[in-house]
Formats: sequence, structure tokens, C-alpha cells
Amino acid sequence: MERTLKLTISYDGTRFVGWQRQAESVSIQGLLEEAFARFEGAPVAVHGAGRTDAGVHALGQVASVRIASAHPTDAVARGLNACLPLDVRVIEVQEAAADFHARFSARSKTYRYLLRNASIVNPFERAFVWHVPEALDLDAMRTAANELVGTHDFAAFRSTGGDTKDTVRTLTQSEIVTDVGRAWSGSPGLDGVHPTSLDDATVLAYEISGDGFLRHMVRAIVGTLVEVGRRQRPSASMAALLAGGSRAQAGATAPPQGLFLVRVVYD
Amino acid sequence: MERTLKLTISYDGTRFVGWQRQAESVSIQGLLEEAFARFEGAPVAVHGAGRTDAGVHALGQVASVRIASAHPTDAVARGLNACLPLDVRVIEVQEAAADFHARFSARSKTYRYLLRNASIVNPFERAFVWHVPEALDLDAMRTAANELVGTHDFAAFRSTGGDTKDTVRTLTQSEIVTDVGRAWSGSPGLDGVHPTSLDDATVLAYEISGDGFLRHMVRAIVGTLVEVGRRQRPSASMAALLAGGSRAQAGATAPPQGLFLVRVVYD
Repeated sequence: MERTLKLTISYDGTRFVGWQRQAESVSIQGLLEEAFARFEGAPVAVHGAGRTDAGVHALGQVASVRIASAHPTDAVARGLNACLPLDVRVIEVQEAAADFHARFSARSKTYRYLLRNASIVNPFERAFVWHVPEALDLDAMRTAANELVGTHDFAAFRSTGGDTKDTVRTLTQSEIVTDVGRAWSGSPGLDGVHPTSLDDATVLAYEISGDGFLRHMVRAIVGTLVEVGRRQRPSASMAALLAGGSRAQAGATAPPQGLFLVRVVYD
Repeated sequence: MERTLKLTISYDGTRFVGWQRQAESVSIQGLLEEAFARFEGAPVAVHGAGRTDAGVHALGQVASVRIASAHPTDAVARGLNACLPLDVRVIEVQEAAADFHARFSARSKTYRYLLRNASIVNPFERAFVWHVPEALDLDAMRTAANELVGTHDFAAFRSTGGDTKDTVRTLTQSEIVTDVGRAWSGSPGLDGVHPTSLDDATVLAYEISGDGFLRHMVRAIVGTLVEVGRRQRPSASMAALLAGGSRAQAGATAPPQGLFLVRVVYD
């Protein structure tokens, strides 16, 4: 009799090729499937809510599995963590409905992108922020970020090569957070925990929630917002990008290390 | 005409052999001397306030140098940071009195040791805390820590092989900090910045200030305090250790990655 489990997972993406299993490279999905194979003694497919790229982190990635063994959920968590390297931790394991699927059942996801807007990045956060030393026009960035809320065609923020046909997505949140206490809160299973610096006024977070994200979409948005902040493009250019703009017209893709998958919401 | 500079340096000690230059290994002192040699075009000796061990971090290590060039202090900081890897940052460069020496002029040093007292360590802090999952008797640890304040013979907390004859030191602070906001404050040049998690009740910090520290002394004290917390030894055993105890009677040396040199105080 198989059962379905929901896993909440946190990882430091620095040394991984990304979430998705790839031959010859170390992926988070691959590590989890290997850990399950040892724990279950049989192959187990692990389905993640979002395919984070190489170098991207997760505070609350969610995965679903169907397994045959009857171990209690906390024994599953302990067993997996015993097999996993310390940069990947299973924070929580819960019983789920038989038809629960981490990706297809997801209603909304939240990502956070961290920038250090100061002359120096401290050594402890270098793998978790994008260092932007130039002065930034935060008001212009806020205005531009706010343009993205709602249902729009995000084709201009999609990585070239993405194969999704439907590029319309609905964002419920798109904002610059400078109140850093808030920037770090709300991670499932990691309440109030955050990877790097806190009460420093030069940490900026961009927080974005929506029903789905195109490949490299968050990083393309952040790259564009930073160009707005540097006054290399006006806030109003966001509306033009949403109204049929091309990827080449949007900003450069921000580097991966500032990006965190914060949480995935289900019904 | 030579001048003396005071440098404040922050580093993630994870991949280094420690502060002190060693042939064939990467040290912080060695990296700084190489950076200065490039910047000055001549060899420069860099003297540090404390010789942190392999894997030990610094928020505010202090070093002194005598150099001939007349570059402004902020140009020296920028030049050094351009030559240094991102896990070592020069936070501040200041002009100092001709006879200033980072080690011999130091009046007091503060170290902080971080423990994660929870079943799971989050992936982002694994290089910055000692994971102690067992329940800890914090009151007993506080009582034991308090015993150390004052002038005592710390021979029982000295690493075997240390060659210092005088093992008497004066501590002005020795306390368990559970108020995490406070645990992270007070880093010079890094106000309010801290390397890892913050408002989580399961982070413990041990903070210790004194006029000098023997080799491995802080880590031996922390290892002993954790044995007190686990009720493997009574709080009162501290007094016996200070009154002629041997290293073998004290606790095991705590691992290096939880230790930070926070600041060095001068007149």
C-alpha cells in the first residue's frame, strides 16, 4: 500500500547544478532520490515544486514522493538527513493526500532575491547576495516592481530557450523590502531564520509571489529592476515590457546566488 | 617616511589553515601580505592581534602594518580588497601611531562562539555553528560561565603543546547569550551584521572578553560548558579546574567553525 509524503527542504544551492537530476552532476533531486533509494531499498521518484537553477537556494522547497514503507514521518526525515550532505536538509515530512503532487498541486510560490547595496559584502554572505555597490533609486524600483502585480504576459522576462507556450502569469506580490526583519521572516519550518545578515540597512530584498514562474523570470525581473534603480531605464519601461516587449529589451539576468525559493503554498 | 596603519579585517575561516602564514597552505596573514606586496611593490609584514586557528572566523580581526606609500586609507582598503578573495575583506583602514602594534598594543579581545541547539542545523549556517542537538541546562551553563570572570590560572583550558609559561589571564566577560539580537551586535565595521541566523531561540552564543587567551582556550571552555549543559559535569567543577586542574580534567575542545574573533580593543 503506497502512501504520499510531502517534504519541505532547505538547501544552500552554491555547489549544485540545480534542483533537477542530471547525469554526471550533483543535483538536489538526485541527492534526495539516492537518499530515498537507500532508505526504502527501492527507487523512489522525487517531484519538486520548482526547478531551481544552479546556485539558487531554497528555504522551503517542497517535494512529493510515493513510498511503500510504513515508517513514521519523523523517522523518514531523520533517515533522509542521515544520508544527505549538510547543505541539504529535510526540514519536515508530512503525510499527504494520495493525489498530492508538489508541482501540479501548487497554488503559489514565493521567491526572495537579496542584494547588498554597499561598498563591501561581508565574507559570510558572499554566496547569498548580489553585490550592487552603486547608489540605487529605491522609489523608482518600487514603482517599477509594483507595475508587475496582476495578470500579465511575462514573455519579456523569460530566458531564451524556454519551451513554455503560455507566458501569462499572475503575480500577487512584487515588492522591494528594506525592512530587513520582515525580509527574512515567513520561511516554513525555519521561522525567522535567514541565511545571512539581518539588521543592516544596506540589505535589500525583492519579494515576489505568483501562480507560476517562467525560466529565469525572477532573475530577469531583478536585473531589470536594478537597471531602473541605477537610472539606466525608467520605471515606466516595465509597462512596455509587459505589453509585448522582447527579452532583449528587458535587463540582464541577475546572478543566481541572491535567489531563494522561500515557500510553496497549497490549498 | 614610513607610516603605521591599523586594519580591521573580516573573514570566513572555513577554507584557511588559520591566521598565521604557513608554507604550502593558504592563511589570512599570507593573503594579506601578498596583497600588500602587490599594492606596495615591496614586502610588507602584517601583524595580527590574534592567531585564529584553522576554520575559525573573524568579524573584527585587527592587523598592523608599516608601509612607505602615501595612498589615502580608503585607497589602501580598496586596493587590498581588489587583490583578496571574497572570503577575506578589509573593512576599515586607519592611520595609527608609529608604535601601534596590533598584538602588543591590544588591551582586550572578545570572542563569540555559536551553538545551534536544535535537531537540525539549517544549510546556511552549517559552517558557522556547533550543532549540539541534546537538551542543555542553560542555568547550569550560566553559573559555570560566570565562575570564569576575573583573574585566574587558565592552564586547564590550554591546548597541550602550548609554550606560554604564564597561564594567568583576566576575563571581564564570560556569558551565555540567548537574546540573539544582542548576540550579533557590536562587530566593528559590521554593525549589526552577523554571519548566520538571527531571531531563532535555538541559537546560543557564548561571549568571552579578556586581556589575553591561551591556545584553544575559548574552545576548551566551550567544550567544558557544553558538558555542564549536558549534565555530564557539575557547574562547580569550573572552580576546581581554575584551582590547579589539568587539561585532561576539562572538557573536549569544541570544533572551530563556531568561533568568531569579534573585536579587539585598544587604548
